[in-house]
Amino acid sequence: MGSLADALARTRAQIEAGLRARLAPADAPTPFEEALLHAVMGGGKRVRPSLTLLCAEACGAETGTDSDALRAALAVELLHCYTLVHDDLPAMDDDAERRGQPSVWAKFGEDVAILAGDRLQAMAFGCLADCRRAAALVAPFAQAACAVVDGQVADLATAKRPPETWDKAALYGIYDLKTAALIRLACRLGAIAADAPAPLQRALADYGREIGLAFQLVDDLLDADQADAGEGLNAIRILGTDEVRRLAGRHTQSALDALAPLPGGAPLLRAFAQTLLTRLA
Amino acid sequence: MGSLADALARTRAQIEAGLRARLAPADAPTPFEEALLHAVMGGGKRVRPSLTLLCAEACGAETGTDSDALRAALAVELLHCYTLVHDDLPAMDDDAERRGQPSVWAKFGEDVAILAGDRLQAMAFGCLADCRRAAALVAPFAQAACAVVDGQVADLATAKRPPETWDKAALYGIYDLKTAALIRLACRLGAIAADAPAPLQRALADYGREIGLAFQLVDDLLDADQADAGEGLNAIRILGTDEVRRLAGRHTQSALDALAPLPGGAPLLRAFAQTLLTRLA
Repeated sequence: MGSLADALARTRAQIEAGLRARLAPADAPTPFEEALLHAVMGGGKRVRPSLTLLCAEACGAETGTDSDALRAALAVELLHCYTLVHDDLPAMDDDAERRGQPSVWAKFGEDVAILAGDRLQAMAFGCLADCRRAAALVAPFAQAACAVVDGQVADLATAKRPPETWDKAALYGIYDLKTAALIRLACRLGAIAADAPAPLQRALADYGREIGLAFQLVDDLLDADQADAGEGLNAIRILGTDEVRRLAGRHTQSALDALAPLPGGAPLLRAFAQTLLTRLA
Repeated sequence: MGSLADALARTRAQIEAGLRARLAPADAPTPFEEALLHAVMGGGKRVRPSLTLLCAEACGAETGTDSDALRAALAVELLHCYTLVHDDLPAMDDDAERRGQPSVWAKFGEDVAILAGDRLQAMAFGCLADCRRAAALVAPFAQAACAVVDGQVADLATAKRPPETWDKAALYGIYDLKTAALIRLACRLGAIAADAPAPLQRALADYGREIGLAFQLVDDLLDADQADAGEGLNAIRILGTDEVRRLAGRHTQSALDALAPLPGGAPLLRAFAQTLLTRLA
């Protein structure tokens, strides 16, 4: 068992190779494939699909090139990338940059960005279709794909209401759908791909939800140091720094507790949850 | 065996009831559910999902409320509706109206229209996930969902090239992906949902492709009588009216030929193919 950093370097390389092979199988990508590559190969940390692989491994599964676990991981990342492409659109968050590069619409046009996002979602389901356990994987995936959209809808609707009406329930409603649903899915699919028994599938789904919430709260704490802090809906504004820090710790603890049924205590997943919190240090 | 008109009235009612139940399960739809209902319940003829049901029945399957055939039919229609919502966006075809009503973005805003389309695609896969034969249905569905996007991409790319470079190969490339892929899928899924043997699945896929091409060519012939005829890429402009009329007839005949392996000759599917052509009369 290597360190978490070693494991994440390995999973990231696996995922990047898998994504590239799916997105542009030939040597010379078409212009639209260039847009897909730009959308997906832009240097993300691959947190979500790495969780899929680590969860599958924690359940004892192989995660090689031909595994359901890797295909499910690629599906999770493609879904995540499609939401980023559509979120950046002028009619949504109107972001012309992402990770220091022009966003897809800024570089290729809005029409191409809409179509690229649409195709990435279709390709995500295509990855699952190639799995031996496709039937078991598609339902939770489709559910989470709906939840992510619902989270965005709830976010937009809440932002249009007066800030004095924003409360913890609204915040958690949005964070559960927008952020935690996909990280929960990533972990759950790893367990399903590993053909793990139902209690392990539930344990890893719970783990995923809790680290998803912790992840979003930590993000808000880190953003609070930035110039545009406090604009829009965020946990700091509603709950204050101290309470958000306390909640992030509590969700991390719940994530660790959820791992109890895992064989061997799942040290990499424990380390992963703890590392999220230490981003604050 | 009733008439085709009777059959289509029945399948349409089944499909509309199924769609409504999926889109807004509670009595009082949320604002976002209103947008989804507006996108889907706007009075379409339900040609594609009706083909799924008729093809399943031609293979001897039940198509009741709890059938894979109905779920697959709903998935096909949700996919079709999502493409219409995104096609209408200002950055795409910029259509403020559809079927005499404001399009989704014109009524609910661009952000909601983008999200509504995204969610309809996710829901389409969700319908398949609920099928007993989910594993067999998802792969061709994901493939066609990619093809439809690729058709739109090819259409945009061709439209940007000088009209003198447009030719029959480019036209068929686009029509195959943009129109025929989804109608082919609709027919093929009916056969898969019916658990039909591979030769019948292939026969109905071929039938679907041929009526899909005939459908698009007939559309172009009908549009040729309209005010804005001849603008943009269309078959009349490239091939002339007489040749398009001949090709529409040829694809209809190929569709009828494809039905040869079907038990009983599939009279409703024969009538369906012939009715498409008689829209010209």
